[in-house]
Amino acid sequence: MIKINHERIRKAQELMKKEGMLGLMIMNHDDYIYFFNDLRVQPRAIIPASGPPILVGFRAEEDELREQVKNHEIMLFSHVGEQISNIKEVFQNIFKGAPPGMSHRENPKVGMQMWFDTPAFLVDLFRKVNKQVELVPSDPVMDELRMVKDEEEIDKMKKAQSIAAKGMDTAKQLLKPGITGHELATEITYTMMKAGAEGTSTPMHINVGKRSCWIHGTVTKDPVKEGELVVIDLTPTFEGYCSNLARTFIIGQPDETQQKLFDTYLEMHEATRKELKPGNTPGNLDKMGKEICEKHGLGKYHIKGISHGIGLRFEENPASTIIPAHAATKLRKDMTNTVGHTVLAIPGVGGVRFEDIYRVTEYGGVVLYEYPYDYTI
Amino acid sequence: MIKINHERIRKAQELMKKEGMLGLMIMNHDDYIYFFNDLRVQPRAIIPASGPPILVGFRAEEDELREQVKNHEIMLFSHVGEQISNIKEVFQNIFKGAPPGMSHRENPKVGMQMWFDTPAFLVDLFRKVNKQVELVPSDPVMDELRMVKDEEEIDKMKKAQSIAAKGMDTAKQLLKPGITGHELATEITYTMMKAGAEGTSTPMHINVGKRSCWIHGTVTKDPVKEGELVVIDLTPTFEGYCSNLARTFIIGQPDETQQKLFDTYLEMHEATRKELKPGNTPGNLDKMGKEICEKHGLGKYHIKGISHGIGLRFEENPASTIIPAHAATKLRKDMTNTVGHTVLAIPGVGGVRFEDIYRVTEYGGVVLYEYPYDYTI
Repeated sequence: MIKINHERIRKAQELMKKEGMLGLMIMNHDDYIYFFNDLRVQPRAIIPASGPPILVGFRAEEDELREQVKNHEIMLFSHVGEQISNIKEVFQNIFKGAPPGMSHRENPKVGMQMWFDTPAFLVDLFRKVNKQVELVPSDPVMDELRMVKDEEEIDKMKKAQSIAAKGMDTAKQLLKPGITGHELATEITYTMMKAGAEGTSTPMHINVGKRSCWIHGTVTKDPVKEGELVVIDLTPTFEGYCSNLARTFIIGQPDETQQKLFDTYLEMHEATRKELKPGNTPGNLDKMGKEICEKHGLGKYHIKGISHGIGLRFEENPASTIIPAHAATKLRKDMTNTVGHTVLAIPGVGGVRFEDIYRVTEYGGVVLYEYPYDYTI
Repeated sequence: MIKINHERIRKAQELMKKEGMLGLMIMNHDDYIYFFNDLRVQPRAIIPASGPPILVGFRAEEDELREQVKNHEIMLFSHVGEQISNIKEVFQNIFKGAPPGMSHRENPKVGMQMWFDTPAFLVDLFRKVNKQVELVPSDPVMDELRMVKDEEEIDKMKKAQSIAAKGMDTAKQLLKPGITGHELATEITYTMMKAGAEGTSTPMHINVGKRSCWIHGTVTKDPVKEGELVVIDLTPTFEGYCSNLARTFIIGQPDETQQKLFDTYLEMHEATRKELKPGNTPGNLDKMGKEICEKHGLGKYHIKGISHGIGLRFEENPASTIIPAHAATKLRKDMTNTVGHTVLAIPGVGGVRFEDIYRVTEYGGVVLYEYPYDYTI
């Protein structure tokens, strides 16, 4: 059900003017939900720097769209070719009506999200058709708007994180020698969907044994063995909002090296949480984490990226493992950031991660949903 | 477990030389599985037009990668910046070693898949760093290789389609007034994962009532009512191979208009299946489908795109709803194509779809996995 958030659109338009953008071309679920509160399948909209937003929909959705947004412009199309030519026309009209200083620029700017979900071929097509436009990342507008969360957003993230916790409970109940990652993933998914998850924002991670060293995650059909480290990372979404809960388990007692990984990681996690304060930066947090790893003789295994922003997108500014410049982003009050994104791993031995989401406050990170750190099964 | 398919690489290299490409930059799961038989999380590899492939991995995966591919070059990196500079160096070396006619071109070509999963910002970054390269779609090489399936591929697709069928059985058992799309999706997902699905290649479609008109699909938490059309489209994957099974149901008896939609769609489906023969084209199939809709007075509701290619990617050449030129792709023996991709919908009333996968033969389409067409619950 579309519900246009006029206040957010007004703020976006202010920022667009400041950035010299004539409009935003919305092509991603997260921005669409942010402005229109709807999980549309093919989210497409144009928000000009002045005037009402234009929603782009398929003809078969016409009745439903017109019922929901009576007073706004809706552009309908039946195939991609029509969509492209209509969008082009809209931008041409926006240029014509733009204030002189803007419309006469050689390359008027249009902002678009350029993240993992923005397909290269659509961007190339957009550029080819809208030759008068300089397509720029919409980050200066959207990051500024979205980094700090309001109470309603934080409530949805708490709900998402509580669903992840239910999934983790299932994992703990079922973890035993012989069970496969795929069997665990099946039951965890079932638990999380029954609890209201729409899906997950990343593929599930159940990294077992040597694969617990991996930065990225996967699920295999190999059985879990006693004494192996098992990293589980769950990312269910609720009303589009992301969660991120990671725990590492071991069936039996950890050996000396594994114990050292657990102890060091948990120390680094808690130290980082305490410093999730306005003004601090992900770069500082990583520097501090490295010092803790060094203290335990694990400095050479330290990997940057302990914390990232999260919200309607799984990784939002600051996301320094993707955009190195984000290491300098200053944290602000009421940002929501994870601690525990990076793995501490000794190749050939295994890796450890514990990840939670925190709200940035002047007293340090306040956890969105508390979940225990016990790790032996 | 990586298993390099040397025969496929040899054929790809022949085609690259023919197309004037110096190499392929692999960034997508489907191409990676095709050449290396592995569901790697961040699939990255370079296949030069001559010489062995280069696998790109994270440092934490080093042991595992070296165990699996002893005799091939492996490039390891710990962060994206390192990855980018290493890939640049590889391409520079490839240019130096390339045959004169190729290395001295102003813009030597490198092929890359440009589909929904190829993020625009990575492509922009690749172009920025590899300025001497003209990045071109790898389709002329990869489509040529992948369009016709071998027996092993068809067996995996049959398995994937059998998993979708189990999911559809669950849907039929549970469909009753009051159940929500989300509840159905939860149980269907559980059934399919228990049967071995890794996940689905598209978000699940459970389009109810007016939303049965939609071309794309979604799942909502609204309850199903008697007399509403319910379109369910399931796309579980097995070892990376895609399935695609869609059925439309109605709780109770269809009214006259709904009955006409069912009858017309099933007639169009069967007529299309019969003509899935080598030499025919998706354009012809749509033309024939339109005539059938016209005969039943539904011509103005006909939408193009009844059939698309499917394999390691959910939509492969021919995928004429995405790439209009594919409407002219000539079908070949042993291609695997769906029939039933497009919806036949009367806005405000509802829509109908029945989709299966067929193997193209000189006798017409042979279904990969038979599933009944009954639609009343």
